[in-house]
Amino acid sequence: MNSVSLHGRTYRPPSGPVVIVCVDGCEPDYLNLAIGAGAAPWFASLVTRGTCLTADCVVPSFTNPNNLSIVTGAPPSVHGICGNYFWDRDAQAEVMMNDPRYLRGGTLLAAFADAGAKVAVVTAKDKLRALLGHRMKGICFSSEKADKVTAVENGIVDAMGLTGMPLPSVYSAALSEFVFAAGVALLERERPDILYLSTTDYVQHKHAPGTPGANAFVAMMDGYLAKLDRLGATIVVTADHGMNAKTDAFGRPNIVFLQDLADHWYGAGTARVILPITDPYVVHHGALGSFATIYLPQETVGDAEVRLRSVPGIWQVHGRDEACRRYELPPDRVGDIVVVAERLWTLGTSRTRHDLTGLDAPLRSHGGVSEQQVPLIANRLAPDLPDRRWRNFDAFDLALNRLG
Amino acid sequence: MNSVSLHGRTYRPPSGPVVIVCVDGCEPDYLNLAIGAGAAPWFASLVTRGTCLTADCVVPSFTNPNNLSIVTGAPPSVHGICGNYFWDRDAQAEVMMNDPRYLRGGTLLAAFADAGAKVAVVTAKDKLRALLGHRMKGICFSSEKADKVTAVENGIVDAMGLTGMPLPSVYSAALSEFVFAAGVALLERERPDILYLSTTDYVQHKHAPGTPGANAFVAMMDGYLAKLDRLGATIVVTADHGMNAKTDAFGRPNIVFLQDLADHWYGAGTARVILPITDPYVVHHGALGSFATIYLPQETVGDAEVRLRSVPGIWQVHGRDEACRRYELPPDRVGDIVVVAERLWTLGTSRTRHDLTGLDAPLRSHGGVSEQQVPLIANRLAPDLPDRRWRNFDAFDLALNRLG
Repeated sequence: MNSVSLHGRTYRPPSGPVVIVCVDGCEPDYLNLAIGAGAAPWFASLVTRGTCLTADCVVPSFTNPNNLSIVTGAPPSVHGICGNYFWDRDAQAEVMMNDPRYLRGGTLLAAFADAGAKVAVVTAKDKLRALLGHRMKGICFSSEKADKVTAVENGIVDAMGLTGMPLPSVYSAALSEFVFAAGVALLERERPDILYLSTTDYVQHKHAPGTPGANAFVAMMDGYLAKLDRLGATIVVTADHGMNAKTDAFGRPNIVFLQDLADHWYGAGTARVILPITDPYVVHHGALGSFATIYLPQETVGDAEVRLRSVPGIWQVHGRDEACRRYELPPDRVGDIVVVAERLWTLGTSRTRHDLTGLDAPLRSHGGVSEQQVPLIANRLAPDLPDRRWRNFDAFDLALNRLG
Repeated sequence: MNSVSLHGRTYRPPSGPVVIVCVDGCEPDYLNLAIGAGAAPWFASLVTRGTCLTADCVVPSFTNPNNLSIVTGAPPSVHGICGNYFWDRDAQAEVMMNDPRYLRGGTLLAAFADAGAKVAVVTAKDKLRALLGHRMKGICFSSEKADKVTAVENGIVDAMGLTGMPLPSVYSAALSEFVFAAGVALLERERPDILYLSTTDYVQHKHAPGTPGANAFVAMMDGYLAKLDRLGATIVVTADHGMNAKTDAFGRPNIVFLQDLADHWYGAGTARVILPITDPYVVHHGALGSFATIYLPQETVGDAEVRLRSVPGIWQVHGRDEACRRYELPPDRVGDIVVVAERLWTLGTSRTRHDLTGLDAPLRSHGGVSEQQVPLIANRLAPDLPDRRWRNFDAFDLALNRLG
């Protein structure tokens, strides 16, 4: 197999099975505190024989932009996916960005498959599957729809038979466990050259690092990762984003309702607030994250920036150009203003449009710069790493080019 | 008793006993998760009958600047205390800032005592005692030196007799418990009009929110606060700063050694890095926080700012004027450059000057903007509060002017 070049970087071919794991919402302290509690012996074993970097994910610190960055090795300005959802100015409609037609560049998964590698992908939610599997020859399915796979669509016919697990609920820790269990079975049975596993942050939205629910989740991962390791895989674990409490000390969500503010300032409907966290699965976070973008008439942009900067809970307000430069975003899919919340705050549209009745635990969420730092871990030593800013989308580079 | 005016604000006299509590390092999630675990029934009871705001503390988010801000109702630009320690350009020496001669304004504690109020102060560590008690008639002592009180110095002769507790170690949860136990005894026996209690963050430096050690600490506080409440006190609880993990996912400290960098760039000793967290008690954090200030020759300032901005782990680099404007600091006690670390990072001087052997748990610390958000809680409702940025140094204003 030859090297693969994509988006300005060259990647060596895998010399044995390589597993890249994106743990959704894996704030570094989840691992640190689970190690301290004795719940993660495999991670603990890497302290001497592995590599651990603290890397920056892509802002907005959401799932799809970061999974796509990891599998392309590039930021959203290159691959185009900057949220779950954006305002299509041409169509004058709010559209989901989980259709591959919004993807602007190829993935490493497809490129390696084209180069002759055997590639397999398992993701928790189906919303990511089509993007990750775009033009990729190989196995690609989600836990969520593991019972509906077809050879043509997913490259596998018996995904449910891999694990013996029942089909998990989309709101469960089991949805992620299914990913790992299927990954171990695939590595044993299919021996892919490249295996990409991506979980869901259902647990992280509810459980703080070091608490029993969180430690149990890390312990589950740790057991499967140890199996992958014993099967001879080179493993790199990273995250799409971190996770923070988004409440006051009494556990009530801290929310700035941006649409309500803009309606009050400029008249109802003058501005359009887009929350790129929004997708069909919002029960566990009420569509509340720490990043928003606002479309509004040009003559109000400057005024709105000034007003927004003085709103408690808002941390950063940038015009489109500055935001796209700073966060490497595609300008045509970003509003006139980008707003980032403070660490313990979220951004909403209107008070009446967020259903928080599904929140059965104090809100924890992500999307902001406060959730940008994530682990970048390998089960091999990496000699002579340069002292630079690492990104989660260096995961393939680390796995293929830099490990000893 | 008349109203008291200080530093541009007017405070109503207390109509009954008022207790202001500064819980050192009380990241809001400590309370939220303890409430969720059932460990804090008193805090839980306030959800319906009390007030909870998310407020900003003073940056650098360290203990002394914030305690002094709370008791003066003003930022460090007014009271002068911007760290534990600064570089005295006149004396050409690094000096501790815990001597009252560095305090530039009076405190509300002294002002109320002068107005005829009975005032009592109990603080965990003695380093704060002299500043808090400056020119104050009344009781003022520390847990640390409760066995050494005198009537002249502390306004009390039997501090050890208040609680029956043995003198606690300076590195212990008991040092803080002693503060609360003494506070309850003082409220019962002396019935002060104003009681100020300030704890130490020994526990918070070691235990993450929601973990057993943290919940036990909150439960301890909760019990004493319930007693103060039953004794009829109006209680406001706030914090000097929050707390974050400062490690990678393996629990190893993330540190930028600024003095080593500056020595490498400009030659040994050309720059002087000051870490204002440094004080005589550094075993539990190794003098590692997320804020530093650097003195260096004028001709290198611009170059150093540019270089520092590209160092991984550094989040913000400001010149003195901008930093002092932004964080309301006294320019004559701040270096040429102010550096703030990213959330999971700390700033050190030289690798050889930090003794980390005392760290028996993964480093958790503070000092940066990432630890700026703190609770501001009262055991009364506050009708018609304005929607503005609240500060921890609004604690006296909230207690005396705004509660129902």
